[in-house]
Amino acid sequence: MRPKIYLFGDSITEFSFADGGWGAALAHHFSRRVDVVVRGYSGYNTRWALKVLERVFPEYCDGGGDGAPLAVTVFFGANDACLPDGYGAFQHVPLHEYKQNLNSIVSFFKKKWPATRILLITPPPIDEEGRLLNPYIKNPSNEPERTNNAAGDYAKACIAVATECGVPVIDIWTKMQQIPGWEKACLSDGLHLTENGNRVVFKEVIQKLREEGLSSETLPADLPLFSEIDFNDPLKAFEKL
Amino acid sequence: MRPKIYLFGDSITEFSFADGGWGAALAHHFSRRVDVVVRGYSGYNTRWALKVLERVFPEYCDGGGDGAPLAVTVFFGANDACLPDGYGAFQHVPLHEYKQNLNSIVSFFKKKWPATRILLITPPPIDEEGRLLNPYIKNPSNEPERTNNAAGDYAKACIAVATECGVPVIDIWTKMQQIPGWEKACLSDGLHLTENGNRVVFKEVIQKLREEGLSSETLPADLPLFSEIDFNDPLKAFEKL
Repeated sequence: MRPKIYLFGDSITEFSFADGGWGAALAHHFSRRVDVVVRGYSGYNTRWALKVLERVFPEYCDGGGDGAPLAVTVFFGANDACLPDGYGAFQHVPLHEYKQNLNSIVSFFKKKWPATRILLITPPPIDEEGRLLNPYIKNPSNEPERTNNAAGDYAKACIAVATECGVPVIDIWTKMQQIPGWEKACLSDGLHLTENGNRVVFKEVIQKLREEGLSSETLPADLPLFSEIDFNDPLKAFEKL
Repeated sequence: MRPKIYLFGDSITEFSFADGGWGAALAHHFSRRVDVVVRGYSGYNTRWALKVLERVFPEYCDGGGDGAPLAVTVFFGANDACLPDGYGAFQHVPLHEYKQNLNSIVSFFKKKWPATRILLITPPPIDEEGRLLNPYIKNPSNEPERTNNAAGDYAKACIAVATECGVPVIDIWTKMQQIPGWEKACLSDGLHLTENGNRVVFKEVIQKLREEGLSSETLPADLPLFSEIDFNDPLKAFEKL
């Protein structure tokens, strides 16, 4: 069986198989080697994620390969970071609870799959101007329900949890802001990713997985590759299976 | 567990998670409802596919949901249809054997998963001029190794097998040729799909699945959707899980 990589997160994970999405790009990158399985839940924060964790990854959950997935990305915080007094207040999770929840999620995976790489991803930066054009929810006020500062606090908290737990982390909040014009180049509505933004996440994820020893060059391919098939005796490649 | 749809085929299936690919588009379309699992093997014909069938779908193979996948697409023939005397001759499979092999593949799935929809897809048309620019293999002759006529013969054979077996089929060979300028609009190298070509396959697949009773509107979502969560009492949605 081909091993798996699970993508666990909110809408930025759920939408990752849309055109140019980072999830689909990962699936293509690890073609013939890994099944990339998306478990993104739009609008969810870490509080809701904890409520469903055992449903999303039940006892009998199949990790492919030897039973455990190669890696799980955990990409929450964008909704937790909604301002507590904005119209996204029902999604808000206080910073200290966010840290606890994220810690609990990491602990769950560590216990379930001790050898699986758990890769935290911070929430992305927020383009506050872009948020006022958010097509998903009518914003009755003229104030964004998320700010870049608040997202930055949750990003720092995510990094702190990764350090505490000894797992790798991608600081996409910082990385993305290094791109000139990131507000519009990387974000379509101040929060969700454009194709450019998706590419940034994709590149960071494969880079981090590579540092963790997981790369398309070293993972075995499922069944003989075309390049390994002898044109003069094609069936030979299938004899030893 | 979320149910699965398997995509079984050659490079046109293997590459279906590249930018604009029909596999990724399916995964996005069935977001939160179905895991789309790609089992594409570049260069493979039905003879090679038969050799690996039990390896690709072993006894313990997980279909998600109640144990059987919702559907399997079977998309072979482009390589079988290589001319027997061209430089792709080692991939060629005679027409009568192609029919037998395809029949055996359908029988395998019917026996393994009696309730699973098996959806055959004919090979796409060939742009012979485009084949001479094929970047994958240096063509020493100045003749294409595939012709549109030969692909058409395999497409008709595929349709005949579907009729014999009583399973649905997408005649992508015919559908694609109805598009003005299909040679360049749908095919990047005379055989593989452009984003336009991918869109044609995607639309035909979701339409056929819909006719078979599988649509994103009727399949249940995995866990409460954001739209089902009460802003005044978000946790209520998770109590009954």
